Amino acid sequence: MTHRIYFCGSIRAGRQDAELYQILIKKLQKYGKVLTEHIGLNEPWNAPHLSGFTLGQEDLAKDKCIFKTDTDWLASADVVVAECTQPSLGVGFELGFAWKLNKPTLCLYRPLNGTGTAGLSAMITGAASDSWTITHYNEPDELDQAFEQLFQKLELTKNSNSQC
Amino acid sequence: MTHRIYFCGSIRAGRQDAELYQILIKKLQKYGKVLTEHIGLNEPWNAPHLSGFTLGQEDLAKDKCIFKTDTDWLASADVVVAECTQPSLGVGFELGFAWKLNKPTLCLYRPLNGTGTAGLSAMITGAASDSWTITHYNEPDELDQAFEQLFQKLELTKNSNSQC
Repeated sequence: MTHRIYFCGSIRAGRQDAELYQILIKKLQKYGKVLTEHIGLNEPWNAPHLSGFTLGQEDLAKDKCIFKTDTDWLASADVVVAECTQPSLGVGFELGFAWKLNKPTLCLYRPLNGTGTAGLSAMITGAASDSWTITHYNEPDELDQAFEQLFQKLELTKNSNSQC
Repeated sequence: MTHRIYFCGSIRAGRQDAELYQILIKKLQKYGKVLTEHIGLNEPWNAPHLSGFTLGQEDLAKDKCIFKTDTDWLASADVVVAECTQPSLGVGFELGFAWKLNKPTLCLYRPLNGTGTAGLSAMITGAASDSWTITHYNEPDELDQAFEQLFQKLELTKNSNSQC
């Protein structure tokens, strides 16, 4: 089954983890369509779906387009995967939105490669439940098992929901 | 009329603006009860409502308590005011949650005192509407008029909603 995956990563709050986002997106593409594939691009603000705007332009019309596209994608997603090491208002917003929509969510955090923060926000860790998981890791390959489990569980839930 | 005000500021993503949060909270207290008054304390993680936990403890039980208290307060608030200069997953989460609840929201941002980011997240600026305002400022006293307008508008909306 092909899943619709919404990947969250920092854009304006810092692109230190851009290469990591690209690696994680490639791993996730094994399981379905990553709607926000552009988060792994060198210049996500010039992604194809934003080509109607002048290059480098960051005005209100463009931001409204980004907001509309992203919230529509998020609402249509089967699952949310967020890299949370770089503190970001955008990633936080998407997670609050996802939580209200009850989307199955996996939050990824690198405690040893953090940005000097005192730890992941309590609004992320305190939301933990059967469908809201927080996974600590250091290297991307450590996540293979977590991704496999996430999508296996999603398949089971989908199959169980489709039974009479 | 006394309003229930939910103030958002960074905790674990950095306390550089803690004194500013305290000043803004004092200004807001002129208009009602700031539910999250502890954001302006020197040690918000040891706020009175968290006194049942060991000092300095940051484990899952405490984070779940913070999450439950904050989301309950947010759901019960008349208005949300967020200082957004310091990128923070927690503030972002609260804003995504507030947006889904259609709460009147004022986002505050200091472009000249930012943390080297490329600007406020498109998930914040792109959400702009009649009830979702972004105000740029440099010094707290510049906000007196914005706060006055916010609460005047809130009074008008409340009065109009209470008419037959």
